[in-house]
Amino acid sequence: MSRTAGAGGQAPGGESGAGSGPHQGVPLAERLDRIFLARVVEPGDELGGRWLREHGARAVVRRLTGHGAAHGGGGPLPGVSEKRWAGLRARAERADPARDLARAQRLGARFVCPGDGEWPGQLDDLGDARPLGLWVRGRASLRMWALRSVAVVGARACTEYGAHMAAVLGADLAERGWVVVSGGAYGVDAAAHRGALGAGGATVAVLACGVDQAYPRGHTELIGRIADQGLVVGELAPGEHPTPSRFILRNRVIAALTRGTVVVEAAYRSGALATARAAQRLGRFTMGVPGPATSALSAGVHELLRGDAVLVSDAAEIAELVGDMGELAPDRRGPVLPRDLLEPGARRVLAEVPARRAAPVEEIAHGAGTTADDVVGRLYELRSLGYVERHGDGWKLTRQAMISVSSDREEC
Amino acid sequence: MSRTAGAGGQAPGGESGAGSGPHQGVPLAERLDRIFLARVVEPGDELGGRWLREHGARAVVRRLTGHGAAHGGGGPLPGVSEKRWAGLRARAERADPARDLARAQRLGARFVCPGDGEWPGQLDDLGDARPLGLWVRGRASLRMWALRSVAVVGARACTEYGAHMAAVLGADLAERGWVVVSGGAYGVDAAAHRGALGAGGATVAVLACGVDQAYPRGHTELIGRIADQGLVVGELAPGEHPTPSRFILRNRVIAALTRGTVVVEAAYRSGALATARAAQRLGRFTMGVPGPATSALSAGVHELLRGDAVLVSDAAEIAELVGDMGELAPDRRGPVLPRDLLEPGARRVLAEVPARRAAPVEEIAHGAGTTADDVVGRLYELRSLGYVERHGDGWKLTRQAMISVSSDREEC
Repeated sequence: MSRTAGAGGQAPGGESGAGSGPHQGVPLAERLDRIFLARVVEPGDELGGRWLREHGARAVVRRLTGHGAAHGGGGPLPGVSEKRWAGLRARAERADPARDLARAQRLGARFVCPGDGEWPGQLDDLGDARPLGLWVRGRASLRMWALRSVAVVGARACTEYGAHMAAVLGADLAERGWVVVSGGAYGVDAAAHRGALGAGGATVAVLACGVDQAYPRGHTELIGRIADQGLVVGELAPGEHPTPSRFILRNRVIAALTRGTVVVEAAYRSGALATARAAQRLGRFTMGVPGPATSALSAGVHELLRGDAVLVSDAAEIAELVGDMGELAPDRRGPVLPRDLLEPGARRVLAEVPARRAAPVEEIAHGAGTTADDVVGRLYELRSLGYVERHGDGWKLTRQAMISVSSDREEC
Repeated sequence: MSRTAGAGGQAPGGESGAGSGPHQGVPLAERLDRIFLARVVEPGDELGGRWLREHGARAVVRRLTGHGAAHGGGGPLPGVSEKRWAGLRARAERADPARDLARAQRLGARFVCPGDGEWPGQLDDLGDARPLGLWVRGRASLRMWALRSVAVVGARACTEYGAHMAAVLGADLAERGWVVVSGGAYGVDAAAHRGALGAGGATVAVLACGVDQAYPRGHTELIGRIADQGLVVGELAPGEHPTPSRFILRNRVIAALTRGTVVVEAAYRSGALATARAAQRLGRFTMGVPGPATSALSAGVHELLRGDAVLVSDAAEIAELVGDMGELAPDRRGPVLPRDLLEPGARRVLAEVPARRAAPVEEIAHGAGTTADDVVGRLYELRSLGYVERHGDGWKLTRQAMISVSSDREEC
């Protein structure tokens, strides 16, 4: 295991270096230890989480690399057979976290882990199965976006009806300021991502492989667009490929990251149902879009709806369910974070959002001297914080935000 | 008000005269008083029910006909304005229960009311809105059939999908020995009735008009077939026509009569939703068949499913919900009524049902010396009582019934 790389990751917006900026927090050494461990144990394996909790990252890495042997720290950690320990040691031999980090940085990805400002705290609900960290491509803050996110998932081999519903829900949720999270797969996932992208909205693809991999291959262009306009996220290190179990375990991240999961179409025993059930276990909202009782691709959804899942027909019903009180009366909610704690990039965008009319993204980008993609990311963050609201294709300040922002403008 | 007719109604099967036979019970005088009152107050008006409960039928009739005036019994009953009383008196002037009864008997209809053996006790859940009585056309016992009945209702202007689902549910419920109750209307109702009829099953049409009226006119043939093979039921006296409020109030009878109501397709504010909500209020099961979220004709069903209604996709799910424990293990349930209390017609049919194989209706009819339609009615009654079970197109004895029946056969 070599440790040569310098930067511990990039803050969202790519503005800050390792350990600096409001969204970073974890020292480089621990970050590299976590990247190392993520190469040794598979996603969702509670082993890594338990070791971290019981021994701390450093001690575990030392044991796995044999560095602790001289000080009596060698041998398998508790609960691991000799044979399994040998396998883990072999993986540890090949792990090179500094190289992983450098490779990720070359393609604009960062490693976000517990303790970072960008870490989405709701993932902690996964307990020891919590990801050791997430590789993230894209400008926006994963933490901010996840606060107002909904998963829209479903069958790969969906019907035209399923694709239509996913696209409409993706677009309409985006229109309402919700971040659409899905798995980047063919069928329902792709339709949901495209719906959100087409509406100029925010979307997050959680992959079951490295965030440098385009899987499925046919989605190379789509995943690139999501990385430009939204976020591409994954537990697996750059270069890693998906496996059946990785798909299943990826689903728990989608479920945990979001306020609720909507299943659009799913046959019996579909992977999308696994996401929905994970959401239920985590206490998230679980929703299903009904379809014809004669459709095998709705049978899994209907099974969910016969349980605790809630039937939803449109984005309004989803927002009503997963939205908090503020959703029903957004004007009465003020910003949850003081303006002067906003990142400089977000403040520049906020300064360009008008109070009395909704401005298109391009206009705001022009004023803030940045790209439209950057602005979209900032606006969705600001939306999470209660500063701005979306009206069709435009954005304006919320009523509560107007006072502080306008007084600030007078100061300038 | 004249009182000239003799018979107080026919027992199911048309075997017994007024007041005689195991399914009758109410004396002719009270029967005529109820028929009279049903002409004076509209269906569902709690006035009639309250008067009956507080004063008894005879006293109310005397007050309405003015016969009690000489003895200080004149004037409006409590809670009725002078003006309304005058209107009720005018209707009372025109009422002629004996003529109603005679007219009904000419077309093979009987008047079943609380106290009769054929009265379905579950209608009592309607409280003072309980029908004063029901006119019934058809051979079977309304009481027995209602014990194992499910309402299948929905939009008149249904889609092909809705008609398909209603027909399949009607047929499959009938195959499982369930009686399919609906309103005889175009669309979902007709498809459900036809599905049950086509499967050689039992179906009941509850009309919002006199049972001698074919409404809608286009269903003259269908309603005739239901009267032949099943039951046609209504609160309104022969000759009465439907009105919008009568349709709505008819729905409470469908809801109360059955173990549960399935809504197949319904737009927002559809009459079928009124039936479903009445079922909910009465503590019956309420079910909905999902459809595309894009279909306006499923929007009302989906609204129900977002509440307490249960999503159902097929007859098995319906039967699982509304069936009692015996449904899951039918062999363990013995007959609920001793054989020697069965009507002679039912005993003759039961004697022809084989123990080791399922016999078709025609064969049983031949052996019992009666018609196939009569046999179908008897078999569904015997099914309610736990004696027989349906297997595809045939009928055989239940395991529990075999002992008593075979011992009886040895006696013969």
